[in-house]
Amino acid sequence: MPGRYAARLNAFKIGAGAYWPGRNRITALDLAERAATVDGLDAVDLNFPDHLVDTTPAEFKDRLATLGLALNGFAMRYYTNPGYKRGAFTHPDPTVRRAAIDETKRGIDAMRAMGGSLMTLWLGQDGFDTPFQADYGRLWDDEVAAIAEVAAHDRDVDVAIEYKPNEPRAFALLSDIGTTLLAIRDVGAPNLGVTIDFAHVLYADEMPAMAAALAAKHARLLGVHLNDGYAKRDDGLMVGAVHTVQTLELLVTLDRIGYDGAIYFDTFPDLVGLDPCAEAAANIETVELLRAAAARLKDDPALATAIAAQDAVSAHRLVQRAILGPR
Amino acid sequence: MPGRYAARLNAFKIGAGAYWPGRNRITALDLAERAATVDGLDAVDLNFPDHLVDTTPAEFKDRLATLGLALNGFAMRYYTNPGYKRGAFTHPDPTVRRAAIDETKRGIDAMRAMGGSLMTLWLGQDGFDTPFQADYGRLWDDEVAAIAEVAAHDRDVDVAIEYKPNEPRAFALLSDIGTTLLAIRDVGAPNLGVTIDFAHVLYADEMPAMAAALAAKHARLLGVHLNDGYAKRDDGLMVGAVHTVQTLELLVTLDRIGYDGAIYFDTFPDLVGLDPCAEAAANIETVELLRAAAARLKDDPALATAIAAQDAVSAHRLVQRAILGPR
Amino acid sequence: MPGRYAARLNAFKIGAGAYWPGRNRITALDLAERAATVDGLDAVDLNFPDHLVDTTPAEFKDRLATLGLALNGFAMRYYTNPGYKRGAFTHPDPTVRRAAIDETKRGIDAMRAMGGSLMTLWLGQDGFDTPFQADYGRLWDDEVAAIAEVAAHDRDVDVAIEYKPNEPRAFALLSDIGTTLLAIRDVGAPNLGVTIDFAHVLYADEMPAMAAALAAKHARLLGVHLNDGYAKRDDGLMVGAVHTVQTLELLVTLDRIGYDGAIYFDTFPDLVGLDPCAEAAANIETVELLRAAAARLKDDPALATAIAAQDAVSAHRLVQRAILGPR
Amino acid sequence: MPGRYAARLNAFKIGAGAYWPGRNRITALDLAERAATVDGLDAVDLNFPDHLVDTTPAEFKDRLATLGLALNGFAMRYYTNPGYKRGAFTHPDPTVRRAAIDETKRGIDAMRAMGGSLMTLWLGQDGFDTPFQADYGRLWDDEVAAIAEVAAHDRDVDVAIEYKPNEPRAFALLSDIGTTLLAIRDVGAPNLGVTIDFAHVLYADEMPAMAAALAAKHARLLGVHLNDGYAKRDDGLMVGAVHTVQTLELLVTLDRIGYDGAIYFDTFPDLVGLDPCAEAAANIETVELLRAAAARLKDDPALATAIAAQDAVSAHRLVQRAILGPR
Repeated sequence: MPGRYAARLNAFKIGAGAYWPGRNRITALDLAERAATVDGLDAVDLNFPDHLVDTTPAEFKDRLATLGLALNGFAMRYYTNPGYKRGAFTHPDPTVRRAAIDETKRGIDAMRAMGGSLMTLWLGQDGFDTPFQADYGRLWDDEVAAIAEVAAHDRDVDVAIEYKPNEPRAFALLSDIGTTLLAIRDVGAPNLGVTIDFAHVLYADEMPAMAAALAAKHARLLGVHLNDGYAKRDDGLMVGAVHTVQTLELLVTLDRIGYDGAIYFDTFPDLVGLDPCAEAAANIETVELLRAAAARLKDDPALATAIAAQDAVSAHRLVQRAILGPR
Repeated sequence: MPGRYAARLNAFKIGAGAYWPGRNRITALDLAERAATVDGLDAVDLNFPDHLVDTTPAEFKDRLATLGLALNGFAMRYYTNPGYKRGAFTHPDPTVRRAAIDETKRGIDAMRAMGGSLMTLWLGQDGFDTPFQADYGRLWDDEVAAIAEVAAHDRDVDVAIEYKPNEPRAFALLSDIGTTLLAIRDVGAPNLGVTIDFAHVLYADEMPAMAAALAAKHARLLGVHLNDGYAKRDDGLMVGAVHTVQTLELLVTLDRIGYDGAIYFDTFPDLVGLDPCAEAAANIETVELLRAAAARLKDDPALATAIAAQDAVSAHRLVQRAILGPR
Repeated sequence: MPGRYAARLNAFKIGAGAYWPGRNRITALDLAERAATVDGLDAVDLNFPDHLVDTTPAEFKDRLATLGLALNGFAMRYYTNPGYKRGAFTHPDPTVRRAAIDETKRGIDAMRAMGGSLMTLWLGQDGFDTPFQADYGRLWDDEVAAIAEVAAHDRDVDVAIEYKPNEPRAFALLSDIGTTLLAIRDVGAPNLGVTIDFAHVLYADEMPAMAAALAAKHARLLGVHLNDGYAKRDDGLMVGAVHTVQTLELLVTLDRIGYDGAIYFDTFPDLVGLDPCAEAAANIETVELLRAAAARLKDDPALATAIAAQDAVSAHRLVQRAILGPR
Repeated sequence: MPGRYAARLNAFKIGAGAYWPGRNRITALDLAERAATVDGLDAVDLNFPDHLVDTTPAEFKDRLATLGLALNGFAMRYYTNPGYKRGAFTHPDPTVRRAAIDETKRGIDAMRAMGGSLMTLWLGQDGFDTPFQADYGRLWDDEVAAIAEVAAHDRDVDVAIEYKPNEPRAFALLSDIGTTLLAIRDVGAPNLGVTIDFAHVLYADEMPAMAAALAAKHARLLGVHLNDGYAKRDDGLMVGAVHTVQTLELLVTLDRIGYDGAIYFDTFPDLVGLDPCAEAAANIETVELLRAAAARLKDDPALATAIAAQDAVSAHRLVQRAILGPR
């Protein structure tokens, strides 16, 4: 589904009192309905289990069809259970670890019931905080074994690992593209891949286009989250707010890789009280403008020549003109 | 001298063997001559004492006139003397500290002899590396007293403090805009101000336009160094390589402040072997393109309204269109 | 009150179900009661308004007396009101800004009613996220004017500014020691000072002992929050978890400055599910061990000589022996 | 050779005028002689080609024997050739790339002639600076192919990849433990492994003990460089200057892994003018003190229990007492 745009459903909770006056409880169905009002936003990702507590997969599937929204996939959320604070797949207590694995399988089943085929795992609880807190080798083995079990549960579902350097843990176990691809190799399942989140990549001190290229080379690039930030933490800013050129390079690279999944806006307008619909519309508009610039660059033989020679000055001039120049 | 562009003279050393075949020694006069070949580059900053070791102020002044280059000012370089490794104005040995102060005064005198009026002090040697290495109160007092003495040497010369978080020291004493303005207040001299370096500001975790605004509000903004980087260290990349929007915001702010000094490109093409003339030309072209975008934005009443309301979404859309939109 | 230890009251909410079985609502009085069970923990800071919603200052004062706890002071919390997401003292809407100022004055009055005299302001909502979002000069003026008004409300109350680089905003206005002291100078009130938080200082890229020394030199050091982290974000780890030497240097410096306020543990055991009482006890034990090492160092003439000469090697060896050596 | 200590030879150049009065040229043999005066320093690493330009492998081997120094290994230095500024194994020009590979093979041969068996590759030139400068897939393939060729040159020599996030390039290709192990897997040679440098690991945002554990698990840990820094850049500080607990955890982990190579002090006393012999002696003393603390911890069953449960508080208390407690 090339060109699909999805946005973080929870962002649409903000201003609920004004948007849904008199309502006591806002469900994920309501959030999807509000998201559907944004022109061009045509897909959603659901968090499991929280977005399905008030409904059934069947009801949600029908509602999405009515709203004209595609289901991009599911994302597991282990933070709804306080028991996962010290780890999901790497929790030291085998009972809690088992619960996390089984919950993930239930999530995969629920998604299949809705016709979806992409489960995103952000294993943010799996990590450590202080020196001498954990046996790193055991953490690694537990993580790899759990991912393997989850990936084996349904080979028709793609499982994407979304890495992030830290938060809530001081250190995440799968913190960057290298460790993520290493874990994926250790598992060795064909339905495993990577979701890159632009802001996570930046604060992992990586170049987004390189992370995408490495993911495609060593595994599969299954998801792309766009947003922006200052490369220090997960700021959740609007696309293009800071890193114009790196976002452009990523878009050109996605095209080259042949990525045809959705662009998901993982931004936090709610954090500072922005209108989530206007914010989503701004993200779509910016990506469309950047895609136009990407089209001006992608078949430029001068750019290809400059890149082959690692001639940074020539490449830079071509890129600056494609962004800022007369047209 | 609005609109003047200057570049780091030492960058023009690269490829000296090919540019000056058979020459054993390349002087600062040679570097200025090479810089003058760049279309639009019309000013130079000289490092003292190193750029004057092979010539006299009078000879250099004449040569600049011949080349059609203005003298933007001088910048002190304390690293030419190994004795300054542990500090210039804050060196624990009073003899070394005195030498640094006196050398600075000689630099001011030499600059005056060339008709200049802006001395930039990057006090990179003044700092510390490890806990328990220094008495911070004494460092501060020594720094403030030395700056005061240097500023008093010639009240017709503007003295600009260029801050930087670290390198070569693990911590610089004057590391960010706040401590720099605090020191300037402690000194209280009318001819003191600030030079902001875009990459330094980024890795001090500051917003460039805010640093410029604070400098203008609490002291005077005397110099602007443009370049780019990834906000982790002093990368010395070409203008616009990473931070398009923040560079644009800085240019709009400079215009609002009424900054009429030179734009100095403090970039390191030599570090990775780029052609310094092509690199300087790229910097000029990018700034000209950004200035055109700034002109599209500066009198936009919709942008003014958005900023007054801190309406990030509306401001963002206007900015993205000014950069990437049709025109 | 030298030697007093306080801890973050909200950390004691964790495990509430097991600690207070059958209880529906846990009040700040309950949290104080639980905190009082920690041996050596003898003071509390209350957040205003949230810690007083279930009780009156008079009742809380009595309860603290019964528990043998001193009131260290109050800390304003502007995040309880969704209206402050885009700013408290710098909110673009004058009505919201006025509400924040007035709420702070009510907090000061409530604290006075409980016999307290230290109000801590962490102005985390006052900042910005994206370029072109705000007029930095106006933000600064609004912040300074509001702090001035609050400080003038009751000259017998000390008002401490606690700076932090970011979070929840991408950039806080008062982000580091330099800008904080600059704002304090702009206000010019005698009852204004600084609270330093160890983890905030680290990720502001500052040396904790230098921040304390600068605060004492240019204003007053009114509060000290100990914790630890990796200098990238506000990790909230136990004291000593990472930065042994810098914590030690800070303790030596506090002694030299004559700081006699409480040590407040601003840690997040709740984030990862640690026992808050055991965690607080660990913090007290570590600080006591570090104070013993500080006592071994503070009057050592060899260390004084090394510091005067900025002789990092000699100072380092003395410090390593004081920490790790035989005794 | 368990327990061997080596230090950066080039650090011993500082103060050459005083140490070798009247000498015009200081050779690597001289540096080794000066290093040998440090009590406990019993091994050296040589940089190739620069440390062998004034002598032959045979002469150097004899001199080391006379001085009682073991040869720990060689480290390639590609920065002596200006041609490598834009890459060694990933240089866009096949001629330059071939020269880098061939020079590495000559280095391996020279080392073998001296009886050594460990070649360390820090591929700091292989990377990129700006978006759109390089084809990341080609960089990766060129790097992997060159490492494979070099590893195949002499299977009796261990080849260690020493990763570092950046500098001199804005981004290194092999920047962290994950990408390094991924490349090693792509090569698949039995004589390939990893050298971890404490300061590099810190500013790659990794936990040193975890990097060592992952290296041992997925390849082999062939070298350990100790030093310290502030996790922002390669500060080159003395061991223990900042990260006491993480250094201790690394030493405990090295023991558990069975690492029996040398500890190499990769510090920069020359950067700030410290006495290199006193600085090396300080590093040895600190590591010995930390090893004594490690011995107090390694067989503590309470610590093993705490780590198995990821009980950060209990582990922390045991560690703090082992460092700071009475004994």
